[in-house]
Amino acid sequence: MIRVLFAAADHRWTEYAPHLRRAFDAAGLNIELSREHPAESVDYIVYAPNSDVTDFSVFPNLKAVVCLWAGVEDVVGNPTLTVPLTRMVDPGLTEGMVEYVTGHVLRYHLGIDRTLQSQHGHWDRHIPPLARHRRVGVLGLGALGGAVARALSALNFDVHGWARRPKSIEGVTCHCETRGLADVLGSSDIVVLLLPATAETHGLINSERLALMPNGARILNPGRGTLVDDRALLAALDSGHIAHATLDVFQQEPLPPEHPYWAHPRVTVTPHIAAETRPETASEVIAENIRRAEVGAQLLHLVDRVAGY
Amino acid sequence: MIRVLFAAADHRWTEYAPHLRRAFDAAGLNIELSREHPAESVDYIVYAPNSDVTDFSVFPNLKAVVCLWAGVEDVVGNPTLTVPLTRMVDPGLTEGMVEYVTGHVLRYHLGIDRTLQSQHGHWDRHIPPLARHRRVGVLGLGALGGAVARALSALNFDVHGWARRPKSIEGVTCHCETRGLADVLGSSDIVVLLLPATAETHGLINSERLALMPNGARILNPGRGTLVDDRALLAALDSGHIAHATLDVFQQEPLPPEHPYWAHPRVTVTPHIAAETRPETASEVIAENIRRAEVGAQLLHLVDRVAGY
Repeated sequence: MIRVLFAAADHRWTEYAPHLRRAFDAAGLNIELSREHPAESVDYIVYAPNSDVTDFSVFPNLKAVVCLWAGVEDVVGNPTLTVPLTRMVDPGLTEGMVEYVTGHVLRYHLGIDRTLQSQHGHWDRHIPPLARHRRVGVLGLGALGGAVARALSALNFDVHGWARRPKSIEGVTCHCETRGLADVLGSSDIVVLLLPATAETHGLINSERLALMPNGARILNPGRGTLVDDRALLAALDSGHIAHATLDVFQQEPLPPEHPYWAHPRVTVTPHIAAETRPETASEVIAENIRRAEVGAQLLHLVDRVAGY
Repeated sequence: MIRVLFAAADHRWTEYAPHLRRAFDAAGLNIELSREHPAESVDYIVYAPNSDVTDFSVFPNLKAVVCLWAGVEDVVGNPTLTVPLTRMVDPGLTEGMVEYVTGHVLRYHLGIDRTLQSQHGHWDRHIPPLARHRRVGVLGLGALGGAVARALSALNFDVHGWARRPKSIEGVTCHCETRGLADVLGSSDIVVLLLPATAETHGLINSERLALMPNGARILNPGRGTLVDDRALLAALDSGHIAHATLDVFQQEPLPPEHPYWAHPRVTVTPHIAAETRPETASEVIAENIRRAEVGAQLLHLVDRVAGY
């Protein structure tokens, strides 16, 4: 019997417990998973850095700490943690991002909001154009942006991508540098923001760049809150130049209840859910790591305690 | 100068004129498109069988009639029509169907309706499962159903298809016969109806088959109105056993304003738009046919006047 302590927020327990149990069973592991094992009985900790557990020295038989988060900066320097620590690299995160972006791009493309507001008995046949006549700009062509651009291209959208440096993706017209950014912004019906948060991308979508976009363009930001100059976007939405924005990330999170985005008729707020670690797939990674630890194999995504990640 | 008469309903003119002009230009054709050419000057008619034109003998110089509709049963027997007649086979129709179904499946998958109703300042993080953990059943694996099943599989959905006879589609678990239908209905979170309207499929989705479906299942019907027993579906929606239905086709169209589907909180009505001929792509087919007629080449989708289609 292996004893695994789950040390994370209450709502995580609800989300993770059934998936972890299923993954442990599937891996052939005989595990008792609990939030309340006696300290001396604990073999492994499934851990979130915001949990109550901060002193690992109370677990004398601990074999490894398997972190639920990708970012381990709040735990990697903990001097009481002397056993191997792994970070979460969840294959479900990219899949979830592709699904979120594809779903919201198709929502814009098909006019689903209008459909949902038109259940009043009028047989009003508004036929959308085909995806091949709809240009979608994807800013950022890294792991997430590249996967999104490929998925949209597979659905026949006319996808134009932009990255700082030249890229080549089949089915995607790739642009780069400052002029390329203007070309993509100037011609896209829908723009998806998937750039990293850097000094260069801070406030990239400002009033000048919003003005480049076609009248009635839509913006989807599942990337980083810092990419958008909020005041400029609100002005462009108020004027109607930008028809709609769906925003998943914000300069301050949770987005404060009084923030104008919440009540704006041309904004949809989603609460930072596009790139979430998924209990289903993360539980499989956790089970695999405990299986490996039990047989003495190399752990996946082992944190380098010197490098800090 | 080639003179093309546009003979179809007023709203079709609004939809088609700009796309036809663009397609004629792209094909290098010098065409004057109008709804009011003098009869003796008309070279071609772009034609809808519900137009005012029923006597083709008034056009002495007519070279061909290019029909906007796939179904030509109302014109093929017209004795005044002695020039070649073509029917519309629009490559955009399948693409549009795939986009409609993919968009509404992702809408259900991501819980977009809930998102749109949750713009009240609460940072309520509801993370959907991944598509690979969402089973979608596609009933009907013909040209449309097959294309839809492939597209959903490419987005990682767990796609199970059903057809009367055995089929094989990569990435899709195919079922057949009566037992296979029960298997697909009994295990799918979302069921898409793309079967043809036949005596066998009439009322297929009745109370018995709805009862097979999991609690909370969703139904998408872009196929045929006759597939669904409306009274049984309304009862299953009222009880909550079926969580939601998005319906594009109906036993009577336009769906009467007093029909309970319009006001039902668990139903989205779309006005038969999923499989619509698209002006953009249909205009290209029309331009290509006039180009062919002008150079004496074989017309596309030429109607066999004896067979009737």
